[in-house]
Amino acid sequence: MQRFAFQLRIRKDKIEEYDRVHAAVWPELLESIRRAGIHDYSIFRRHQTVVLVMRIEDFDRAWETLARDPINQKWQKKMADIFEETQDVEPGERFPMLKEVFYME
Amino acid sequence: MQRFAFQLRIRKDKIEEYDRVHAAVWPELLESIRRAGIHDYSIFRRHQTVVLVMRIEDFDRAWETLARDPINQKWQKKMADIFEETQDVEPGERFPMLKEVFYME
Repeated sequence: MQRFAFQLRIRKDKIEEYDRVHAAVWPELLESIRRAGIHDYSIFRRHQTVVLVMRIEDFDRAWETLARDPINQKWQKKMADIFEETQDVEPGERFPMLKEVFYME
Repeated sequence: MQRFAFQLRIRKDKIEEYDRVHAAVWPELLESIRRAGIHDYSIFRRHQTVVLVMRIEDFDRAWETLARDPINQKWQKKMADIFEETQDVEPGERFPMLKEVFYME
């Protein structure tokens, strides 16, 4: 199980809303995330930056599964206006990934 | 054991060096970090931003222990010119902390 991290920018006027909705994520969405193979999943926020850290067996398969999941689609629709319109994604990237350069068990 | 994350900025001309030295951290420093009570410790990097994610029982005690550790002091001296001079620290903060706003086991 590999560790992955990526970061997203949220709108300045949506910081409180972001924290509030993430303190009460739908149980059925948690079930979808688990079924997609994502575990030990934290979201850390500082100001407008959120860093999502998780363990996944197959990153692309997990996020493709979630992209097709109706519950996740509904959640993403609800979240759409929380995020800044443009994210710092590079060609070929699904998300602005951070590379793990160090790990100690 | 709580999860913590903070972020630091490195100098643009030190990115390669940062990755290289963190691929070969001194075994005696790993020992010091473990003794300080830090576990499951990842460093993720994107461009000049590094996000340090770890599990610790007592965050302040662990970093105070490390601050007094001669091996860590030697390491920090070696790292000093890798980091940008000013970090985005707020009053009362040891590091620019990220707050965990979501967790799923």
